[in-house]
This record gives sequence, structure tokens and C-alpha cells, in this order.
Amino acid sequence: MAMCSLVTRVKAARRSLALRLSFRRLPECSGTTAARGGRTHPVQLGGCRRWYSSGSRPNDGLLFRQLFESESSTYTYLLADRETKAAVLIDPVLETIDRDLKLIHELGLHLKVAVNTHCHADHITSTGLMKTRLAGLESAISKLSGASADILLSDGDQIAFGKHYLTVRETPGHTDGCVTLVTQDRHMAFTGDALLIRGCGRTDFQQGCAKRLYNSVHEKIFTLPDRCLIYPAHDYLERVNVPGQTVSTVGEERMFNPRLTKSLEEFVNIMDNLNLPKPSKLDISVPANLLCGVHQV
Amino acid sequence: MAMCSLVTRVKAARRSLALRLSFRRLPECSGTTAARGGRTHPVQLGGCRRWYSSGSRPNDGLLFRQLFESESSTYTYLLADRETKAAVLIDPVLETIDRDLKLIHELGLHLKVAVNTHCHADHITSTGLMKTRLAGLESAISKLSGASADILLSDGDQIAFGKHYLTVRETPGHTDGCVTLVTQDRHMAFTGDALLIRGCGRTDFQQGCAKRLYNSVHEKIFTLPDRCLIYPAHDYLERVNVPGQTVSTVGEERMFNPRLTKSLEEFVNIMDNLNLPKPSKLDISVPANLLCGVHQV
Repeated sequence: MAMCSLVTRVKAARRSLALRLSFRRLPECSGTTAARGGRTHPVQLGGCRRWYSSGSRPNDGLLFRQLFESESSTYTYLLADRETKAAVLIDPVLETIDRDLKLIHELGLHLKVAVNTHCHADHITSTGLMKTRLAGLESAISKLSGASADILLSDGDQIAFGKHYLTVRETPGHTDGCVTLVTQDRHMAFTGDALLIRGCGRTDFQQGCAKRLYNSVHEKIFTLPDRCLIYPAHDYLERVNVPGQTVSTVGEERMFNPRLTKSLEEFVNIMDNLNLPKPSKLDISVPANLLCGVHQV
Repeated sequence: MAMCSLVTRVKAARRSLALRLSFRRLPECSGTTAARGGRTHPVQLGGCRRWYSSGSRPNDGLLFRQLFESESSTYTYLLADRETKAAVLIDPVLETIDRDLKLIHELGLHLKVAVNTHCHADHITSTGLMKTRLAGLESAISKLSGASADILLSDGDQIAFGKHYLTVRETPGHTDGCVTLVTQDRHMAFTGDALLIRGCGRTDFQQGCAKRLYNSVHEKIFTLPDRCLIYPAHDYLERVNVPGQTVSTVGEERMFNPRLTKSLEEFVNIMDNLNLPKPSKLDISVPANLLCGVHQV
């Protein structure tokens, strides 16, 4: 698959219009250029894609797997197009690279992109090492993360895999470079550390800003349909009351998130007084993740 | 909701025929009787239900949650009808009763049945205690488990919740009383300890029999459609290579299960030589679970 079909850029105004219309076919557009790992590559703008309203049949032909790494309590997500077998992996962890590669192999998938929702501080990504094991695999992370990767994502970009794609929504606040990835039918959102189930990522290091996070969640995630499934980057097993949940919805978090249902001022006050210990892997994870993990190639 | 709508008995021949037909409406049938907690209650036989082929749209209007209890590595499943809010809980764990009740309350669900796939040896069920917290809740377990519960299930029984229902398939071998619960569209199967992801339950205590387990999986689970999702009762985080998986499919397990792809003789030999330590909670869990947990009411 040519690189131009993996990441698509859509202008904000056109995207907004398209999202309001069911089955609207956007016109063919000529190629343009965008940053890809500091290099300039052709990417497709708009181009010949069906848009679905939130009421349409969700994710026909999508293979989906949620995986868990227990040391850092991280969820990794595998999505693939059943027809072409093209796949995307979200937030893979170094310690579980063999599990992930084995599953990808067993399912007969062609992994096109391994994407991180942000530069993680609690674990090392496997994207760099994975590139040495899978020919043609490209790494991706947001441009605003400051990290190196083959594909540097910006708001509105689309990561395509077969007939499916994920749209990038920039949701900074936990870090400057956090993104949420949304399926084309807006039925699933991979929120990284911006929004957790009945929680959210901390904002006390790595460019964290409680006010930015609050606005990101309210403007970029809570504006998705109430039934949109929320798949976060973590579920902390040691949490009191609500551990061991695998998914939530926009509607639930809008109603029951103990932090984000508060006013901005109350939220900032909560986040400024969490007094959490520093992540044990912060000093090794962040430098490594700025280079797609320890084994950047 | 009247008790007669919760559990439905269907004769095997009629069920087999119905599963081959899409949208076949079965004729109204008169009530009959079956064992419910040692008492005799009217239950519905057949009665006025839509059947779906495996090719139809899966689980329209079904709310589904997979939950995890980390000490015993147990998955609990919550299924509900979005329209009526009627819900079923599968394999709830005593330690996470507050989480489960909180989620049920937040989602506005009416929990009708809390069902165990078998008499667990590694954790204590919360069904007994949950009955004291939720009016109208009934506990369920297979008749062959020898345990007490409000509803004693047999092969072919249906557990209804709103327009949805689960069909009971007896899958003994890990214990005599193990069942697999299958959604009406045969898109999801809750296999308890009979079939785990790339594994299976042990067969060296509690009436365990490797030959019975092998036949159960091959005759009652591997005969489901290849795309049918497998939701087991456990995922052991400490397992080598494949920890942290949340779901599999019939097709995958038929291809890649390291034990159940073997011949019967090889399987029995593997299971007879696992040399596993006794579960730490065996001596307290089994007696408690024979009475719906420690707080039977």
C-alpha cells in the first residue's frame, strides 16, 4: 500500500460539513504534502471516501482487539480491515511485543501503522522495535509531541487501514502532544490518557495543564455521540471502587466522571492537589519514547 | 418481569431447526414446569421469540461490558437490553460487588439474573450477597453443578433479558456442571473455564475429566460459527506469551489453541501432566459457591 493511502488530511471546514451528512462522497482531490518524520511526502487530501453519520451501522468488517499489559496497566488496541487485512496498532508496549506480533501473525494481518496516542511516561513503546520485525510498518505520533516517528500527526489527519480509518483529534493537557483517535462512524474513540474511565490523565509533569485537558475533553471528546465507546490507554487495577473496567461511553463519562463533570475551576483545583508520586519509569520512558522506544531505527 | 419470561426451555429438535432459519417466529406454546431451586415453577416452552441466523446483524440493542477482577483474574460480563434495561450478570466476584452494583446503577439497569458458568474453585461468587442488595434478582447455575440457586439450568434453556436471551450449552469436563452461554445470534459465547483464550480449564479436581472437556469443546463450542466471539471466565496475567487478551473467536481457537487442536489422546496426556498447584481458595470457594457465595439468602 502506498504511503499516501495511510494518512489523509482533510480541511476542518470540509470535515465539519461532511460529518453532518450521511453517505456523502467527497470529491476527488489532488495530492498535497505534509510532514512525515521531518521529511516531505505526498498525502491525500479528502479523496474519495464515504462518511457515515453516527446513526449508521457501526464498523462493518472491522476486526477489533483490546489487549492489556499488567505492569503499566496499559491497553493496546489492534484494529484491522477484515477484507484487506490491513491493520493499525495503538499504544503497543515493549514488554508485550511478542504477544502482539504473535497475534498479528495468527490473524494473518498486515500491520501498516503503529501509533502512540502520546509520548508515554509509564512504559516504553514497542513501535521502534516492531519496525525491525515487520517490513513496511510505519510509526506514528502527534507532531506536537516533539517525538520522532515516520508519520507526524496533526488534528484532522486520518490513518487509513483498508476501508477503515481513524481520525486524529488533538486533545492536549496531559501532555502537549496527546491525541484521541476516532473511528469513521464515531462509534469508538481511543482517548489515550486524556480521558480514562471515570478518570483522566495527570497534569503535573510533561507539559501537563489541567485547563487545557478540561477544554480538550469537553471540546473534542464530549462532543462525540453519547454512545461512542471510550477506549482509554489505561485501567489501573489498584484503583478503589472502579477497577477492571474495559470500556465506557461518552454519555457515561459526561454523567459520571468524578472530575470532568465539575466546573473548570473545580477540576483545576482537583488536578493541582492530586499529590501523586512520580511514575517509576518516567526518566527512562520519556527519552526512549521520544525515539519510538529504545530501538529506534 | 414474570419469572416465566426469564428462563425458557426449547426441545432440542425444534431448537436445531430454528437455528437454521432467519427471523422464524416460533408458535405460541403453553407453559410447562421445570426445576427452579428445587421448587417447581412455570417456565415458557418455545414461546414467541425471533430467531436469527448467524449471518444476521449481531446483537442490535445489546449493551455489553467486560469487567475484570485481578486477584483471581476473573472476567465478569454484564449484558443488557438497551430498550427495557433488563440485564444479566455472568460470573460476578465477591470482591468486586460494589463496582458491579455501582455500574448497574449508573447505567440504570434492572438486573434480573446473576448466573455462574460453574461452581468456581478460585473465587467466591457475589450472587448470594447481590440478591440481598437488589430486589427481584435471581441466581442461576447449572443443575448438574449440585449447587443451590433460584434457577437450575439445563442444556437448551434460555435466559431472557428484554428482547435478548442466552442459550445454555452444557460443556462439562472442567467440572460436571460447566455451561457455555451463547447469545441468540451465536455471535458471542461465554465459555466459563471450558475454553480459555489459547487454553482451557484444568481437569484434575472437582469432577474434572479431560476426555469430557475435549468432547464438550469440540461438540458444543467448536460447532459455533468461526466468527463467534469467545469470552472466557479468566485471563491469567502471569501466563507466558499470551497474557492480557480479552477475547478470541471460535475460528482462532480451532486453529491455534495449543491443547484443543491436538488429538483426544494427546489432549488427555497434556491435561494429566500439568502438575498445577491446588488453587489457594479451593477449600473455601467451592463450599461457599455451592450456596451462591457466603451470604446465601
